[in-house]
Amino acid sequence: MPKPLSERVSSVGGRSLIRAMRDYAAEPGLGAELRRKGIERVIDLGQGMPPFPLPGYVKEDLAYLITDTPGINRYTLQPGLPELREAVAKKIGGRPEDVYISAGSMAGLNQAVAAIVNRGDEVILTDPHYEPMRHVTLFYEGVPVYVPLIEGEGWRPDIQKLEDSVTGRTKLMVVNTPANPTGNVLAEDELREIARIAMENDVYVVCDEAYGFLTYGGNHVSMASLEGAGDEMGDLLVTCCTASKEEAMTGFRVGYVHTRNRRLFGEMLKVHDIQSICAPSVSQYAALCALTGPREHVEKFRNNLDKRRKLLRECAAAVPDFDYVEPRGAYYAFARYNRGMGSLDYSMRLLRELGVVTIPGETFGSLGEGHVRISFAATPEDIEEGMKRIKDFQERIA
Amino acid sequence: MPKPLSERVSSVGGRSLIRAMRDYAAEPGLGAELRRKGIERVIDLGQGMPPFPLPGYVKEDLAYLITDTPGINRYTLQPGLPELREAVAKKIGGRPEDVYISAGSMAGLNQAVAAIVNRGDEVILTDPHYEPMRHVTLFYEGVPVYVPLIEGEGWRPDIQKLEDSVTGRTKLMVVNTPANPTGNVLAEDELREIARIAMENDVYVVCDEAYGFLTYGGNHVSMASLEGAGDEMGDLLVTCCTASKEEAMTGFRVGYVHTRNRRLFGEMLKVHDIQSICAPSVSQYAALCALTGPREHVEKFRNNLDKRRKLLRECAAAVPDFDYVEPRGAYYAFARYNRGMGSLDYSMRLLRELGVVTIPGETFGSLGEGHVRISFAATPEDIEEGMKRIKDFQERIA
Repeated sequence: MPKPLSERVSSVGGRSLIRAMRDYAAEPGLGAELRRKGIERVIDLGQGMPPFPLPGYVKEDLAYLITDTPGINRYTLQPGLPELREAVAKKIGGRPEDVYISAGSMAGLNQAVAAIVNRGDEVILTDPHYEPMRHVTLFYEGVPVYVPLIEGEGWRPDIQKLEDSVTGRTKLMVVNTPANPTGNVLAEDELREIARIAMENDVYVVCDEAYGFLTYGGNHVSMASLEGAGDEMGDLLVTCCTASKEEAMTGFRVGYVHTRNRRLFGEMLKVHDIQSICAPSVSQYAALCALTGPREHVEKFRNNLDKRRKLLRECAAAVPDFDYVEPRGAYYAFARYNRGMGSLDYSMRLLRELGVVTIPGETFGSLGEGHVRISFAATPEDIEEGMKRIKDFQERIA
Repeated sequence: MPKPLSERVSSVGGRSLIRAMRDYAAEPGLGAELRRKGIERVIDLGQGMPPFPLPGYVKEDLAYLITDTPGINRYTLQPGLPELREAVAKKIGGRPEDVYISAGSMAGLNQAVAAIVNRGDEVILTDPHYEPMRHVTLFYEGVPVYVPLIEGEGWRPDIQKLEDSVTGRTKLMVVNTPANPTGNVLAEDELREIARIAMENDVYVVCDEAYGFLTYGGNHVSMASLEGAGDEMGDLLVTCCTASKEEAMTGFRVGYVHTRNRRLFGEMLKVHDIQSICAPSVSQYAALCALTGPREHVEKFRNNLDKRRKLLRECAAAVPDFDYVEPRGAYYAFARYNRGMGSLDYSMRLLRELGVVTIPGETFGSLGEGHVRISFAATPEDIEEGMKRIKDFQERIA
């Protein structure tokens, strides 16, 4: 019996259910079992992946770049391609030297926590929250402190409870807007309040803005863009963005990290080096093509996803006892299913009996129990068929 | 003044000099300063990057795949494309379920240390060693213990000292063959001795075999392939390989992790999830093209690099007081320069005065002081011009 493995990793608990559900769906036996029941294929409403191909101009440019660019196969400079850092800086209104290119925004987020959090430091997360941020916090031996989001008020954060949760050991607050899994979008006054609390208590803020381009009706506000607060927050703020969603490049693993805190920037680069060396070169070129191209796809993506959001609402209306707060951003519905069954059981049975992938709400925090996350970044056919099966399931287990 | 950042990262010390030297070379002022001295351009003998383009068939296949493969832009399953895991398993003689695809071998190596090492556990590294493995050890709060390599005997490890260095707190040994920066290749009997010591003391072994395909004359032996020892070592062994060197894909960030320890495999996947989600999809497709293609490039790479190794030897013969153990693997010469100057000073002056990038030996460990690492994975012109400048420098500072 070899020696026990590291506590750091075992403290994380299980694997990410967001990712693992898709692996369960790919298990060899499942397809055959479903076919015996007359179910031809699995419908994936789980992991959030834009249902679009690469924008056409990116695809074409990239095919030529791969053939013609000497050095596209080689390490880039560690902080990323200078042209890409410039394009990102222009996009977000910052300086290129305050930007580095991470191997996806998950890489950037974990690098921020690694560089900020000491063992035992408290990290404020919302409940529900994006599950991997809890894993990252535990991995780096921080202590998660949860601030409730209020479902009855559109999953907005309870700012008073946020302020009350700050102690002398609070080192970091994680802000996610538009939010995964709830679809909430923080308003400017809420961001200003969070910034005030951070500054008054000298607490770092990591802003996860992976879905920044994707709001329906309202506008996304970036904390870094807040006049006044943004400036004063400079030393306390890290913003993580990504090409994953906006450029339909989830698989490319290319994200953007921005902070004006030079020391923090340097420390994060050290972690980036240990974990990634540099972001994938070919993906950096792809992101550069996308950011410097016509960008019409972004509006198309948004309109298209908005249609799917409405389609999901129509389909969900037919499902008994199944409802959710209308998402104002991102592409998830966080639905309450109102059945006496834990959400992991619910999602696993739904997968094994009816072949639909959803993400169990409990993995997003205790207030996520009784919910499942449904991605509407899926084809209209899959949304319709998936919701039809969920209707069957809801009736079956009523 | 914001609160102090994490000790975990500050304990790492500076940034990786292997990576940073290239950034220093790219600093805006340097080019102009060199041109004033009549030096047209910087010669990069620093970071190890194959001087070859992508193999032609990979380039072509990949350009088509990007245009034609639906889903090439999306996350793959978290452990990687099933076909790629199979191709890797076939290559290394293992089972696909014991392989996952990491975002480069640096990612895999750091994930192994993260999953094995608890705070205060001792980790045996050689001196000199591949610098980032010291950084990884410190980042995960392990205690590096150094076992000397014997320069006078071709930088082979002192096995007796290795055995003596094992204590009750030793958790992990890092084995690197062919070795960076020394070019040493471990013989089968040395690997068997290391395996015996690991098994007798219940110590994990992480084998970094990034240069496994690249030996000159002798053969690379993988610890996982050792009959008997390999089997018994199963629960203690992680092997990390990469497409970076063998397929000329340093920038693609795609590597292979293999372990037969199922629990360790699961724990490493959790870290992989936190850091990478999945390896870059487009890079995984590229590696799959490469591994399942004609593979003639591998022999070409080896022959070509062997010629450059010989060219470097010819050029070095003309440089006063400058010598190195002939590398038997990888593509580095670890040269003793015999001048009364620290290696960081030496490399920085060489860069700033003569525009040649080398890596200071001290960054590889205390026995690396007085050396510089020179990569011969460079064009013949650059090897010749770089060594000419080094000759000038050696004469200048004599």
